[in-house]
Amino acid sequence: MADTKLLETFPNPAPQRDYRIEHTHHEFTSICPITGHPDFATVTVRYVPDRLCVELKSLKLYFHHYRNHGIFFEAVTNKICDDLGRLLSPRSLTIVTDWKGRGGITSVITAEWKR
Amino acid sequence: MADTKLLETFPNPAPQRDYRIEHTHHEFTSICPITGHPDFATVTVRYVPDRLCVELKSLKLYFHHYRNHGIFFEAVTNKICDDLGRLLSPRSLTIVTDWKGRGGITSVITAEWKR
Amino acid sequence: MADTKLLETFPNPAPQRDYRIEHTHHEFTSICPITGHPDFATVTVRYVPDRLCVELKSLKLYFHHYRNHGIFFEAVTNKICDDLGRLLSPRSLTIVTDWKGRGGITSVITAEWKR
Amino acid sequence: MADTKLLETFPNPAPQRDYRIEHTHHEFTSICPITGHPDFATVTVRYVPDRLCVELKSLKLYFHHYRNHGIFFEAVTNKICDDLGRLLSPRSLTIVTDWKGRGGITSVITAEWKR
Amino acid sequence: MADTKLLETFPNPAPQRDYRIEHTHHEFTSICPITGHPDFATVTVRYVPDRLCVELKSLKLYFHHYRNHGIFFEAVTNKICDDLGRLLSPRSLTIVTDWKGRGGITSVITAEWKR
Amino acid sequence: MADTKLLETFPNPAPQRDYRIEHTHHEFTSICPITGHPDFATVTVRYVPDRLCVELKSLKLYFHHYRNHGIFFEAVTNKICDDLGRLLSPRSLTIVTDWKGRGGITSVITAEWKR
Amino acid sequence: MADTKLLETFPNPAPQRDYRIEHTHHEFTSICPITGHPDFATVTVRYVPDRLCVELKSLKLYFHHYRNHGIFFEAVTNKICDDLGRLLSPRSLTIVTDWKGRGGITSVITAEWKR
Amino acid sequence: MADTKLLETFPNPAPQRDYRIEHTHHEFTSICPITGHPDFATVTVRYVPDRLCVELKSLKLYFHHYRNHGIFFEAVTNKICDDLGRLLSPRSLTIVTDWKGRGGITSVITAEWKR
Amino acid sequence: MADTKLLETFPNPAPQRDYRIEHTHHEFTSICPITGHPDFATVTVRYVPDRLCVELKSLKLYFHHYRNHGIFFEAVTNKICDDLGRLLSPRSLTIVTDWKGRGGITSVITAEWKR
Amino acid sequence: MADTKLLETFPNPAPQRDYRIEHTHHEFTSICPITGHPDFATVTVRYVPDRLCVELKSLKLYFHHYRNHGIFFEAVTNKICDDLGRLLSPRSLTIVTDWKGRGGITSVITAEWKR
Repeated sequence: MADTKLLETFPNPAPQRDYRIEHTHHEFTSICPITGHPDFATVTVRYVPDRLCVELKSLKLYFHHYRNHGIFFEAVTNKICDDLGRLLSPRSLTIVTDWKGRGGITSVITAEWKR
Repeated sequence: MADTKLLETFPNPAPQRDYRIEHTHHEFTSICPITGHPDFATVTVRYVPDRLCVELKSLKLYFHHYRNHGIFFEAVTNKICDDLGRLLSPRSLTIVTDWKGRGGITSVITAEWKR
Repeated sequence: MADTKLLETFPNPAPQRDYRIEHTHHEFTSICPITGHPDFATVTVRYVPDRLCVELKSLKLYFHHYRNHGIFFEAVTNKICDDLGRLLSPRSLTIVTDWKGRGGITSVITAEWKR
Repeated sequence: MADTKLLETFPNPAPQRDYRIEHTHHEFTSICPITGHPDFATVTVRYVPDRLCVELKSLKLYFHHYRNHGIFFEAVTNKICDDLGRLLSPRSLTIVTDWKGRGGITSVITAEWKR
Repeated sequence: MADTKLLETFPNPAPQRDYRIEHTHHEFTSICPITGHPDFATVTVRYVPDRLCVELKSLKLYFHHYRNHGIFFEAVTNKICDDLGRLLSPRSLTIVTDWKGRGGITSVITAEWKR
Repeated sequence: MADTKLLETFPNPAPQRDYRIEHTHHEFTSICPITGHPDFATVTVRYVPDRLCVELKSLKLYFHHYRNHGIFFEAVTNKICDDLGRLLSPRSLTIVTDWKGRGGITSVITAEWKR
Repeated sequence: MADTKLLETFPNPAPQRDYRIEHTHHEFTSICPITGHPDFATVTVRYVPDRLCVELKSLKLYFHHYRNHGIFFEAVTNKICDDLGRLLSPRSLTIVTDWKGRGGITSVITAEWKR
Repeated sequence: MADTKLLETFPNPAPQRDYRIEHTHHEFTSICPITGHPDFATVTVRYVPDRLCVELKSLKLYFHHYRNHGIFFEAVTNKICDDLGRLLSPRSLTIVTDWKGRGGITSVITAEWKR
Repeated sequence: MADTKLLETFPNPAPQRDYRIEHTHHEFTSICPITGHPDFATVTVRYVPDRLCVELKSLKLYFHHYRNHGIFFEAVTNKICDDLGRLLSPRSLTIVTDWKGRGGITSVITAEWKR
Repeated sequence: MADTKLLETFPNPAPQRDYRIEHTHHEFTSICPITGHPDFATVTVRYVPDRLCVELKSLKLYFHHYRNHGIFFEAVTNKICDDLGRLLSPRSLTIVTDWKGRGGITSVITAEWKR
């Protein structure tokens, strides 16, 4: 499973201001833990930084590490939310995962982190 | 008519958090009870889980069982809302059915479940 | 002009719940009362039913009857709003008419019915 | 039925050159001769003029006259092709009618005129 | 399986001209003969009529009769091609079936009929 | 500059109701007062009428009169807002001008009229 | 009317090769000679240069000069074709004008220049 | 690397006719052999069957096996072409791979198989 | 780095009214300070002017000056916000930068200026 | 100006087959040699390789080197065509540059390389 040690941070360049950062990864893929088939999603990280920002390349590598792990839609969304919440202690944080269809059904999961 | 016994659940992996799950079935079809002609819709299930989540494959099979039953747009939307509300006792639940045109008219029905 | 006697109703199958029904007719046409040229619009009926729902085929026939009558955009929108409001006594009702361009100008008229 | 006397012409301003004129009417409507329901289409007239061009406003009025006549898709396409072919004796002429759906079926009819 | 007796014809109104008719049914559905799951497709019938045209409503009913039959993509495309070829003896005929995704794969099958 | 005398009104057919009228002119053009180059915009007039509605054809002619006048984006938006506000004394009024790009920059100006 | 003296040229930088240049002006406007109303079009100039290329800014100014002149769709297309053909003596040249709708009809005129 | 033993076939149901089958896999992913980063593509298999058709589910599993193998765009396209050509001995076969951007560059590779 | 001396202002033509101006630059480019690769963004400046408006051409030149400077997404968004806030002392101001993908990740940064 | 020494090649993995490679760079930018303003384009390289393929990352760096050079649309298209033609000696090669609008005019230049 993706290790939070992969994630790197840098100091927020404008901590005096509440401003919003949104990174959308269009190529997330993991494995369905029941069928073993690949799942594909778009993952959005939307947050207001406090002292720290997440470094973009490390975020990409963190997402790549889910590639061969079996995990449910609901669980992976909450895990990303927990991992980034703990890492950044942001003023606010929302994770949205938008999954390509399986059997004619598409899914969107949205979780918010609370300090 | 679709039997709620087809629906399966699994425990909510993050009950400590209010987060939103949205499943959209793009291939719903039933029969017009007056003309006998097929109707086609997109059905969206949007909910905040409490203790239970609906299992995705069982949800698909539940929708498939409407295939040869005659039922009005308004009735089927409310039945899906009632069935999933009783099954999940979610913190909130909305059903949206979006019907392909008949005679130049398209329809959207939206129902919310209250505990 | 379209006669409200064309409109038929059926009992609301879920009167215990406030839910929204939206029918969109994509092929509305009437006549400009000044130039005699045809006008084309999309008409949306959005309502929360109380005791009655409007029957879909009768709604289509009601719209067809405007085909050869001269009437202004503002007037036809308010007439549809009045006719359906009186027929259904709904919990809420909104009519939106969206008119194709004439001389490079498109128009949208939105009216709400109050009990 | 639309009368070809409605159609007006003007002399081709560049008869020394083979060039193509294409007019697309987006608001054609006629009546289904079986059900009496309205049909809607986009009609394209594509031609290389010889001595005459069709005047645009008269073409619009010619199309408007189909509004309350019952005629099949195949027949109206061939009639427009015959009417404009006889009127213009063009170097080439193609008529395309593209019909909005009825019962989930859309139709496109394409006819070419030969001198 | 869909019975060709459902199909009705009418005389070609312009047999002196080679012109093209294209009907596209957007709501075709049949059953996968292996999994029993529903399949969904858009079916296009493109032909140059000789003496006969296919009647549109009967074509729709013919397509509806595949609803509960198990048949492979390749087989159903060739069967529709054979049925309409025999019925109409057209000057040319092409069938295109465009299938919604299963497991991330969409399919298009194209068959031409030869006299 | 466009003269408000071009604008004509007619009595609101439903003064008992607050309803919204929106006219969008897709072919507005004026002149940049600095470079002399043409500017192009879409202009939206959105209002709730009180006693008067603006007549559509006169509105088009009013817009046409800006064609050869040099005026800044900000100024023309406020002038249209003032002209229509004074003419109609509406219950509310918003003007939106959406300008095509110049040097890779597009602009949108939004002004509201207050009684 | 637009004066061809506005047009400037520069030497073709690759006369040894047949290559295609296509400039599309999205903001062409002229006046309808009958009604006096403005017309709007997209104008495409597609050519294989011989010894000369047309300079882009001068082409824009040439198009701007049609702004207040009354001219028919067919005539303006042929005039632009003649003007650029004479100026450039290109290996090939095609002009396409694509006109916004008037009364629900859009038009496309296509002319080719022959040496 | 993906093993052709995963691929299964079934007899062509209409060998008397030349008809075209096109399967498009929207979720192909492999690994860049230089950087180790994931690549994503849409892969289209377009063929005219002779005696054999490829079974759809086995095709999906064959594509899944590229998931963790490092291979260049040009090489994987030619390998799929060779594998399916040898398996099916089709009357014709084309493979198209359409790759998501890397560093602002997207790529499309197209290979045809010859008997 | 872009110098705020490049920015020019003109007096707000309608200071009596709160109205919104939105300029979107579609061709912003700067340099990634780590890799040296170019970054591309759309930059939106949305503000309610007080006494001053920013002149459009000077805004374009100001943006052009970032072309060869290395700066992070978060930092450039806050710098533009600070520069325009100090220049205009607007009633409100929001900056949105929307960055093209790098490694499959797109980003949007949104900052508001407070007086 | 971009130096062809930046370009690297690798051996064609399937020289026995004529197959097509198409790389599209969506972020090309250079400088207008007259005004000094930046130009933006999409550049497509479409070729059938003979013994050599162009390496993708080196192609990106080659394109980046045009960033601060002044060059006309026609000249840069022919230069890229010459550079890649000489480097690869491909079986065929086409370059297409598609330029964002300047003053309402977009341009597309297409050049083919001949051995």
